[in-house]
Amino acid sequence: MSDLDQQSINTIRLLAVDAVAAANSGHPGAPMGLAPAAHALWKKMNFDPKDTKWINRDRFVLSNGHACALLYALLVLYGFDLTVEDLKQFRQLHSKTPGHPEVLDVPGVEVTTGPLGQGISNAVGLAIAQAQFAATYNKPDFPISNSYTYAFLGDGCLQEGVSSEASSLAGHLQLGNLIAFWDDNKISIDGSTNVSFTEDVVARYKAYDWHVLEVANGDSDIEAISKAIDEAKKVTNKPTLIRLTTTIGFGSLNQGTHGVHGAPLKADDIKQVKEKWGFNPEEKFAIPSAVAESYAAQVKKNQKVHEEWNSLFAAYKEKYPELGAEVQRRLDGKLPENWADSLPTYTPADPAVATRKLSETVLSKITAVVPEIIGGSADLTPSNLTRTPGAIDFQPPSTGLGEYSGRYIRYGVREHAMGSIMNGIHAFGANYKNYGGTFLNFVSYAAGAVRLAALSHHAVTWVATHDSIGLGEDGPTHQPIETLAHFRATPNIAVWRPADGNETSAAYKSAIESTTTPHILALTRQNLPQLEGSSIEKASKGGYTLVKQEKPDVIIVASGSEVALAVDAVKVLEGSGIKAGVVSLPDHHTFDSQPLEYRLSVLPDGVPILSVEVMSTFGWSKYSHEQFGLNRFGASGKASDLFKYFGFTPEGVADKAIKTVEFYKGKSVLSPLTKAF
Amino acid sequence: MSDLDQQSINTIRLLAVDAVAAANSGHPGAPMGLAPAAHALWKKMNFDPKDTKWINRDRFVLSNGHACALLYALLVLYGFDLTVEDLKQFRQLHSKTPGHPEVLDVPGVEVTTGPLGQGISNAVGLAIAQAQFAATYNKPDFPISNSYTYAFLGDGCLQEGVSSEASSLAGHLQLGNLIAFWDDNKISIDGSTNVSFTEDVVARYKAYDWHVLEVANGDSDIEAISKAIDEAKKVTNKPTLIRLTTTIGFGSLNQGTHGVHGAPLKADDIKQVKEKWGFNPEEKFAIPSAVAESYAAQVKKNQKVHEEWNSLFAAYKEKYPELGAEVQRRLDGKLPENWADSLPTYTPADPAVATRKLSETVLSKITAVVPEIIGGSADLTPSNLTRTPGAIDFQPPSTGLGEYSGRYIRYGVREHAMGSIMNGIHAFGANYKNYGGTFLNFVSYAAGAVRLAALSHHAVTWVATHDSIGLGEDGPTHQPIETLAHFRATPNIAVWRPADGNETSAAYKSAIESTTTPHILALTRQNLPQLEGSSIEKASKGGYTLVKQEKPDVIIVASGSEVALAVDAVKVLEGSGIKAGVVSLPDHHTFDSQPLEYRLSVLPDGVPILSVEVMSTFGWSKYSHEQFGLNRFGASGKASDLFKYFGFTPEGVADKAIKTVEFYKGKSVLSPLTKAF
Ligand SMILES: [Ca+2]
Ligand SMILES: [Ca+2]
Repeated sequence: MSDLDQQSINTIRLLAVDAVAAANSGHPGAPMGLAPAAHALWKKMNFDPKDTKWINRDRFVLSNGHACALLYALLVLYGFDLTVEDLKQFRQLHSKTPGHPEVLDVPGVEVTTGPLGQGISNAVGLAIAQAQFAATYNKPDFPISNSYTYAFLGDGCLQEGVSSEASSLAGHLQLGNLIAFWDDNKISIDGSTNVSFTEDVVARYKAYDWHVLEVANGDSDIEAISKAIDEAKKVTNKPTLIRLTTTIGFGSLNQGTHGVHGAPLKADDIKQVKEKWGFNPEEKFAIPSAVAESYAAQVKKNQKVHEEWNSLFAAYKEKYPELGAEVQRRLDGKLPENWADSLPTYTPADPAVATRKLSETVLSKITAVVPEIIGGSADLTPSNLTRTPGAIDFQPPSTGLGEYSGRYIRYGVREHAMGSIMNGIHAFGANYKNYGGTFLNFVSYAAGAVRLAALSHHAVTWVATHDSIGLGEDGPTHQPIETLAHFRATPNIAVWRPADGNETSAAYKSAIESTTTPHILALTRQNLPQLEGSSIEKASKGGYTLVKQEKPDVIIVASGSEVALAVDAVKVLEGSGIKAGVVSLPDHHTFDSQPLEYRLSVLPDGVPILSVEVMSTFGWSKYSHEQFGLNRFGASGKASDLFKYFGFTPEGVADKAIKTVEFYKGKSVLSPLTKAF
Repeated sequence: MSDLDQQSINTIRLLAVDAVAAANSGHPGAPMGLAPAAHALWKKMNFDPKDTKWINRDRFVLSNGHACALLYALLVLYGFDLTVEDLKQFRQLHSKTPGHPEVLDVPGVEVTTGPLGQGISNAVGLAIAQAQFAATYNKPDFPISNSYTYAFLGDGCLQEGVSSEASSLAGHLQLGNLIAFWDDNKISIDGSTNVSFTEDVVARYKAYDWHVLEVANGDSDIEAISKAIDEAKKVTNKPTLIRLTTTIGFGSLNQGTHGVHGAPLKADDIKQVKEKWGFNPEEKFAIPSAVAESYAAQVKKNQKVHEEWNSLFAAYKEKYPELGAEVQRRLDGKLPENWADSLPTYTPADPAVATRKLSETVLSKITAVVPEIIGGSADLTPSNLTRTPGAIDFQPPSTGLGEYSGRYIRYGVREHAMGSIMNGIHAFGANYKNYGGTFLNFVSYAAGAVRLAALSHHAVTWVATHDSIGLGEDGPTHQPIETLAHFRATPNIAVWRPADGNETSAAYKSAIESTTTPHILALTRQNLPQLEGSSIEKASKGGYTLVKQEKPDVIIVASGSEVALAVDAVKVLEGSGIKAGVVSLPDHHTFDSQPLEYRLSVLPDGVPILSVEVMSTFGWSKYSHEQFGLNRFGASGKASDLFKYFGFTPEGVADKAIKTVEFYKGKSVLSPLTKAF
């Protein structure tokens, strides 16, 4: 390794050390161990610090996100919109250098990481998107997409099940555009990895059909690291795992121990390491000028590559005007004009249909006109109805099962990886609108990924069928009770539970148009009637008055399958001389974003409100005075038997409504939306 | 194979076929494919159908729970408290034969399965518990525990990340008492496993350090299956995976296709298979008398083994009276007398301490007097503070890292497996009280397992530290917002968020005394003062008045770190002439179980109530009129900066309280607990 390389690597290490010391908080060990690999890799990567969204950039994912000081040091050295001043604010409120890499806060971060196992799984999604994009748009002599996805991951990422799921799928999909580096430093927070992690990782990844390389000395042999990257690229039909044997906290007095994992180096330790490496021990955040110049020169080269790509793409647009316009539209983040005209609408004369089936109809209409919609299912395709007629699977062509330009992904029984991969596909850019199907109850398996979608503004769509006890015989292991509450309580998730065909179309409209909010569409297994008074437009407000009454005695607010039940209860209540209105509230998140005036027109002061949803009532007091739901686990049985047993019949709802009316008689009633602050 | 074996296997197959047909719902394919293995295995298992809780029984886990018709058929044939009449009610409401095996509903079911990957992970927990129990209590010539755990699993279970995590750990732990059968039928719901699952499973399990055997013909070679089980038992320092190549739906016209996975066989198909196997096609649920007699004879033999064990244990109790009494106490499900006296108590004179640290103190006190408390952490031991001084790790002795009698489990970064394993340890019996540590935010990774704990009444304890933005610099990827709402909305989970030392002791008292309810203890990273007026007794009601006022203008209800904040706000409010009471509500679940009269004494009619919790307000309207919380993701920064920025200061809380008082002035106010029904 050249002296300049060594100095550059030590600069990265010490920037990380100084940042963690300034914060008196953070993780110096992994940055010190991984600086050589990062230095060697970034030299080979194509990216433009001045255009972080360039579609053909190579992507770097730091799956062990706690090592973010490493990434921030690189971003500073490579001239991204991040400076040494930002490093000095490491982990401080409102800084651009938060405690884990946050895609919304730090220019140059591709995906938010920290929760272990997510980054490498996002990287699989990035690689899938690149393969799909390239296969769809590349033309002979016009390789407009040929970028790589690189990921660093630690022992923790390898232990998390989500990474196992994603890695197994990546091997199956033969993603040669994915290159991951395992920081094999034999240390985790509990100390030696020997206490719990003694499996043969290399053999496991070979079993997944990955190409595995080993670098014996990741601390200083950057030639070997560079060579491994070149080797990895030569194998185009397998993802590569490069095992890097490194020393955590390399250079520190405590190197090789968990003492350097998650705590700043002590002052005397910092002093000795700076002296050892020829840095001024009194100086902090030092960037030797030779180091700065060499990275700046690298950036210049990279920008030339970017310019060449610009020319290539310009020529592509001339030669393939239609495809070129489509790519440009996607890069501009615009949907095809009038795409929403393809959304089906319904009248009460149309037959009763399950919303999962209505979802299939929507998908078949919109995938025909929006090429950036791709999706799949976690092995529940015939139940989720997520595969549209004539769809081609996204598969390695050599399998004979599909094409890389295919738009349907067979995720296998891997909900969590599906969630992380969906996030990665969205993070790729190019306006990808991607969905994944599973039973609503098993979205919970992917909670870690769903949360990161919300935090990172990945507008992905969960097609979550079998949404209540309405799934029937599979029983309580499969019947969601708490699931909607869980995701409604999470910031920035739209949780739609449409009641009929028009509302299903509205849910998809919201999902496809969103660029920042993940959507969960909770859909029924059982048939639901088409409602009088529903429309895409009304439902698009998240909540609206379905059955309007002059001076109602009570308003019933419901979602999904319970809306039709509420409408039937109105008729029962008429018999008791009670005037009941009905509000359909398919999505709390969208409804909450409406002006208060509108919301109060739907849920006004002066009328007692009863919520009806055949799941946990938790949270419904936000919109109602009284709640009818299911605050217990369900049961195995025919759906019709279950609804009856738990009292979810027109008569059962009417009974609760009567009790509500009687209880509030003579009391002054404020809308639950009318609040003190 | 003998004719009788063949007839027995076909009887199992046809009972399953008839049950699914009667329900017109369910999964015949896996039972038909797995009947030979089940028949061969159960012949070798020790169990007593008349004493399903016998501690030294071999345990059978059907990880592919959708194949439950297979298990139910076996339970009927072996004379458990389940009959052909129950099979006829398969998947019907209130039957003893629900759509997936439910431990609370079906005699002989060890753990509830269906959500894929859980069963095999529970089996790892069962095997850990058996190893720990045996190492703790077995004596030379007194092998009072030497049972095996067997599991069947399908392709889906192998694809789920939770099983990868658990299997990796099982290999590390050298669990020779665990034998799993992979139903390698090359079919899942999406069709051929080739579409998404082409990894080399055998190589992967070898990489985990499992002993792997292969049975080429699982459809009829029961000698090979028997031999494989014997081979498996010979290897005592590795878990065994037996790969069974089978034909899904063996015997059906559609055998070997996904058409037989999840739908009943058609009438003509049932007819042909019965005829082919010499059964009367007109008869349903047939059990040939030779078959019935042979299983009955097997039961007799098994019961003799049980009786021999009874004698052995009686002799053990004579020879080792102290240990014998301890085992007997544990088998009786009783805690040591006066164990709760060891719980620490505090006064306001005691220093401020983080509740994670208070938790460590409780654990060190109670583990000393309650031998059935075992626990661990998902690689966050120094952060969760879950390892008590002097603890010995649960490790294979050959590693030199611990003993099988050790009581501290190094789970690695495997939260989901930890959850499933904890459930399995509880399911073993012997009064195990087991806990697992992680950050509160990452309990969500294990949502699938937590939900099953609640459904199956596994009283396990999550030590969930770093419970809010109070964790500070790690930022929003680690700061829970929705987590408490998620688990509070789930039936049968106690979600404690103690405010000080006495409440932390109360939380553990509830957790250890519970036999049916999982507990999540949300604990702070930051120090909290010891409150005036708290006590174990009061906190044990789940909620209580901490600051009492005559005719308060407002009541502030809070949990955890916000209780002390509320107390400080009271003083600020005094300055504005406002009398504020404070209610501490550490656990909604426990509070909800108190008589309404008590609850109304805490949250009475006539006083506006403001909730304060620095997380999602979702669900708090159940206990309050106004909610102050954090309905957005947090941020990276010093905890003190974050609390200030988001307004969680005494002045900030007082401001909300003043607005609450002003808003409700002159309005009649009902307690949120006063409901119409
Ligand atoms: Ca490590
Ligand atoms: Ca299968």
